[in-house]
Amino acid sequence: MLTGFEPFGGDRTNPSWDAVSRVVPTGYELVTAELPCSFAESAPALRALVAEHRPDVVVCVGQAGGRAAITPERVAINLDDARIADNTGAQPIDEPVVLDGPAAYFTTLPVKACVAALLEAGIPAAVSHTAGTFVCNHVFYALMHLVATEHPHLRAGFVHVPYAPEQGHADAPSLPIDTVAEALNLIITTTLTTATDLPTTAGTLH
Amino acid sequence: MLTGFEPFGGDRTNPSWDAVSRVVPTGYELVTAELPCSFAESAPALRALVAEHRPDVVVCVGQAGGRAAITPERVAINLDDARIADNTGAQPIDEPVVLDGPAAYFTTLPVKACVAALLEAGIPAAVSHTAGTFVCNHVFYALMHLVATEHPHLRAGFVHVPYAPEQGHADAPSLPIDTVAEALNLIITTTLTTATDLPTTAGTLH
Amino acid sequence: MLTGFEPFGGDRTNPSWDAVSRVVPTGYELVTAELPCSFAESAPALRALVAEHRPDVVVCVGQAGGRAAITPERVAINLDDARIADNTGAQPIDEPVVLDGPAAYFTTLPVKACVAALLEAGIPAAVSHTAGTFVCNHVFYALMHLVATEHPHLRAGFVHVPYAPEQGHADAPSLPIDTVAEALNLIITTTLTTATDLPTTAGTLH
Amino acid sequence: MLTGFEPFGGDRTNPSWDAVSRVVPTGYELVTAELPCSFAESAPALRALVAEHRPDVVVCVGQAGGRAAITPERVAINLDDARIADNTGAQPIDEPVVLDGPAAYFTTLPVKACVAALLEAGIPAAVSHTAGTFVCNHVFYALMHLVATEHPHLRAGFVHVPYAPEQGHADAPSLPIDTVAEALNLIITTTLTTATDLPTTAGTLH
Repeated sequence: MLTGFEPFGGDRTNPSWDAVSRVVPTGYELVTAELPCSFAESAPALRALVAEHRPDVVVCVGQAGGRAAITPERVAINLDDARIADNTGAQPIDEPVVLDGPAAYFTTLPVKACVAALLEAGIPAAVSHTAGTFVCNHVFYALMHLVATEHPHLRAGFVHVPYAPEQGHADAPSLPIDTVAEALNLIITTTLTTATDLPTTAGTLH
Repeated sequence: MLTGFEPFGGDRTNPSWDAVSRVVPTGYELVTAELPCSFAESAPALRALVAEHRPDVVVCVGQAGGRAAITPERVAINLDDARIADNTGAQPIDEPVVLDGPAAYFTTLPVKACVAALLEAGIPAAVSHTAGTFVCNHVFYALMHLVATEHPHLRAGFVHVPYAPEQGHADAPSLPIDTVAEALNLIITTTLTTATDLPTTAGTLH
Repeated sequence: MLTGFEPFGGDRTNPSWDAVSRVVPTGYELVTAELPCSFAESAPALRALVAEHRPDVVVCVGQAGGRAAITPERVAINLDDARIADNTGAQPIDEPVVLDGPAAYFTTLPVKACVAALLEAGIPAAVSHTAGTFVCNHVFYALMHLVATEHPHLRAGFVHVPYAPEQGHADAPSLPIDTVAEALNLIITTTLTTATDLPTTAGTLH
Repeated sequence: MLTGFEPFGGDRTNPSWDAVSRVVPTGYELVTAELPCSFAESAPALRALVAEHRPDVVVCVGQAGGRAAITPERVAINLDDARIADNTGAQPIDEPVVLDGPAAYFTTLPVKACVAALLEAGIPAAVSHTAGTFVCNHVFYALMHLVATEHPHLRAGFVHVPYAPEQGHADAPSLPIDTVAEALNLIITTTLTTATDLPTTAGTLH
């Protein structure tokens, strides 16, 4: 399963959904869905989708304006701190995603193998260690909480993608939507064929 | 207490220690120390310093080459993933900082009040949500683990600082060492006078 | 003589004028002026100021949002191409600054010696090879055209400075106004004491 | 005609030549060549190629490590200032490309129409106003000097391209080589079908 987000923050499109909806699956069954950019609605929607479709792998995808590469996220933190309001007008500040949940969850995707596969395909990619504190991190944490509490065998994670060129953010990096769609397919196929992540570093100095 | 790091990664100086050693405390007693850039040695050294001096506030400071602002860190994660070897040649990959420790700890510094004080003083500052996966995050996590297990009343956290101009990283942002030293003093005094952090957002969209 | 600009583009302050107005001259007579952010009015205002005060050195200063360092400019080009309207509503596209003027002028400031002096003082600095195509480049070109046609002995140039932290551009680098003011004084004193620029490289690969 | 460069500065590949050699021309005859990364040899090699093949359009392409988009260059300046030695060991500092040549030349490519075509195709692109002071700018200036002195009807210019992901510059933006090759073909076809450039702004504020 792949999910993208609806547009937010003044943009008329969101490359996460545009790319998810263009993915051509190679050798697996794909379910896609567009999540609302809403703290209150996104996690219940995701939970219902997982309960309905019982996927083996779930990758939620979100826009990271300003990033230059496809960035699988390593860690979700139990913190909502919204710089701007979400699409329903909600702006939680310093609230937990899940009350009394752990401070963080690590992804169960093989993020290093995914990045290696993307780079080998000539697509810019890097592991990220922060998904922010907006709806993207909220959904990512909620997803990993689902894994921890309801679906222990689910392989799940989050991928941030750059702006698309047609959004018009002239001073920020961007990638073609088709390149992002190809990358998402590679992340799914790599996950399906990788039992244990690569023992290579993807660390950052800060 | 303020700590900085020794130089690493080919640099001959480290602005974290250069700035810490120039801080002129305004109205409090200051202890400073230079930590080794070593996964094995840094945390025991910090633990011994805290045991010896019993400080009210501990701020560890590290260099974040490429950042443009003073960035108090919000969250430490239980992960060592070293892109380069530390100064003793060690390069842990995907190891926990503390075996069976929680996935993450949040800082107990009032990071939003600190950033507000810095901006009011005309110093570039922002809250960061990743301290990386190298020795800086290692020390930060070990420090917060000390708070959780031995020193519950200690207010503690980590601050990343940019390169100094004299290091010669021509394509990267930098700040004068004196500006960084002034910032660190402001962070200490703000912490000493702020019981509860500001209810303002310092969140990031990703 | 030092000039700064009035605010533009939605900002309520402009660090170029804020810094110019705080410069404390060390051993020379200083005249300062705030130029309008206007294609039509800025160059005549500058010409009148130079005619009135007959300075030995003129450094015009402007804001370069997004840059991290003090950047003396090397070359002014004969092109107005305004991404946004200026403060009078004018938005010239692909017009020359001076009809039948040469394609470009090089500065007559010793920009390499200035950058070396700034770095030695611990202030981030680099030579820039583009002043853009907005009012800053317009004023710079007009200034160098004045040198070429009316004031052959005038040493003149342009310096771009980063945002100030208090402007609130949270994702962009910035420098304290006092640091910028100190930098501008160093640029003037270095120019007054440097007959020939340093034979060191300040080039960029692209 | 499209030219790329050989690798330099420690890289084992150069995306400019890798992309040029993969361009599949759509409806025109294409000549390609790899230029040496040499101040002394590049311009004579280019001059000989133009004399031999008599092209209608010449686009020289070079690597701009750190840029995130395809960037057609607007202006070439008469300055060599090499931060590093070229592949023959030469490192000119503050020398003109052409003795007594004008300070700068503007491109004769319709750079705004090219950028618009790239963005419409979903490829990140922007006009640049500096080609640096290394071999890229040297070749660009030499090319435009050829136009000014020998080939008045030649439409000519320079395009900088980002790193390729496989070069391993993990902290810098990059684009797939195939995307760059597609972009170069679009730049040629847009030039062949555009007599006058678009009257839209592509300016920068600094």
